[in-house]
Amino acid sequence: MQLPGSVRITEVGPRDGLQNEARFMLTADKVRFVEKLAAAGVKEMEITSFTHPKWIPNLADAEEVVAATKDLAIESLALIPNRRGLERAQKAGVTGVTFVFSATDGHNLKNLNRPTEESLAETLELHAQAKADGLRRRISISTVFGCPFDGRATPERIEHIVGRLVEGGCERIGLCDTIGVADPLQVFDISSRMIRRFPGTEFELHLHNTRGCALANTLAGLQAGISRFDAATGGLGGCPYAPGATGNVATEDMVSMLAAMNIQTGIDLDALLEADRMLADWRGQPLDSAAWRVQQRCSQPTAA
Amino acid sequence: MQLPGSVRITEVGPRDGLQNEARFMLTADKVRFVEKLAAAGVKEMEITSFTHPKWIPNLADAEEVVAATKDLAIESLALIPNRRGLERAQKAGVTGVTFVFSATDGHNLKNLNRPTEESLAETLELHAQAKADGLRRRISISTVFGCPFDGRATPERIEHIVGRLVEGGCERIGLCDTIGVADPLQVFDISSRMIRRFPGTEFELHLHNTRGCALANTLAGLQAGISRFDAATGGLGGCPYAPGATGNVATEDMVSMLAAMNIQTGIDLDALLEADRMLADWRGQPLDSAAWRVQQRCSQPTAA
Repeated sequence: MQLPGSVRITEVGPRDGLQNEARFMLTADKVRFVEKLAAAGVKEMEITSFTHPKWIPNLADAEEVVAATKDLAIESLALIPNRRGLERAQKAGVTGVTFVFSATDGHNLKNLNRPTEESLAETLELHAQAKADGLRRRISISTVFGCPFDGRATPERIEHIVGRLVEGGCERIGLCDTIGVADPLQVFDISSRMIRRFPGTEFELHLHNTRGCALANTLAGLQAGISRFDAATGGLGGCPYAPGATGNVATEDMVSMLAAMNIQTGIDLDALLEADRMLADWRGQPLDSAAWRVQQRCSQPTAA
Repeated sequence: MQLPGSVRITEVGPRDGLQNEARFMLTADKVRFVEKLAAAGVKEMEITSFTHPKWIPNLADAEEVVAATKDLAIESLALIPNRRGLERAQKAGVTGVTFVFSATDGHNLKNLNRPTEESLAETLELHAQAKADGLRRRISISTVFGCPFDGRATPERIEHIVGRLVEGGCERIGLCDTIGVADPLQVFDISSRMIRRFPGTEFELHLHNTRGCALANTLAGLQAGISRFDAATGGLGGCPYAPGATGNVATEDMVSMLAAMNIQTGIDLDALLEADRMLADWRGQPLDSAAWRVQQRCSQPTAA
């Protein structure tokens, strides 16, 4: 079994996680959450989204979060859904951006109110501008492995979209299982195909755990040659425009599995569980994370 | 990615699942549960355990369950911890048996009150007797991938134990992650090693999902050449002598992942979710199964 020696995990809990929670986390608490994640060894983090607050009210404090975390020793990213988002983000002083659109028209229409092709064209323009302005950048393609409205896109469609991005100068591209319907064989096949077809591009996987397959899909991705993954501490997340989807793969579960396989992430599991504790206290309900449940169970007295 | 075209799943919910529940399921309900599983296409099932009722009170009705299910079109198995268990099982008319002991002394002492070597010797005697009497048989070796008391056994120790069993005429051997601490690389390595070393033996994996890795471990097992797995509907289970461990991999999650990869199991997911419904109603609390959660979420009205 061929596996990489190290993996970079990009923490998306402060963005993909918190956007989907029932209530707003106070800015000061968000900053504390980000600090705890940084203290656990997270090097790169998607800290907020410059989406209109009308659509994602939980992240209405994007400017404040950027300002309050800019001195932390992390590479921060902010999600950018459109031109207005990029303007706001640059004014706020972000140094890294994630552009996003969906591989399927059905989801893109729900999420961004236009077909994939239009978002793709705009993304290329915004990406060029961000590059010229010296920002770190990545593109996250949603619903690569399945869409709640359009089903599975063909591998040819994914390849076409990725090809357009690569031609347009995009160097880092995320393949996202937005609703958690990917299976390991599909992840292996799509990832292998993209790596083979676009050898100079840095691919990453963004996996949700709706069907419990996120770690199996991680393993399949690793075997295909992917060594960069998104994850959200506490298994938070979901998509407001994807019925039935559940959270991101929990960072602590990914770290736990990778550590057991002697794959380095630079992230300390015990310290990450401190961030879990803060999240669980704030939520007042359990987290969707196996590592968290293990800790909870093992810290209770066991029966004889 | 080399994967088999079909997989046999041995359902262990009625035994490994129910033994660990907070309360006794009435015999008539157990029979109904077994019938629902059979109706979903489960071909082989561990339906009870002939352990002393003092230790596993939830399965004190082993004789009654065997009698009430003997006409079902399934291959049933009963768990046998010792000589007295085999006597009871044969008197009850079982046609298949699972012998069990642990790879590690620490767990075997807690579970069976003697060191591994003694259980191994007795198992060989009982296995020979069961073979002479025409019973179907398998051996399940607990704590192959980790023990709550002794840590990880060496691969050499596992190979020694398996070698003794193979020499003694055992043809079907389960490698059990009793407490759910295996990682995919370990599963791949141990499974590959056993298959290579003992090519005539039928190996199977019994995985728990304590750290969320059960489906990743399933994938690793498939890649190593394993095509027989235990699973428990509803993700029930755990081990009364293994602090912190959680349930078996949920049958419905395994079926769902395998179906997505076009690997046949003969089990119908929707019918299995009917068994889930019965279990959830009986328990009065949620099941630890992604497929069940998806169904629950998707059957609720979604927000606009």
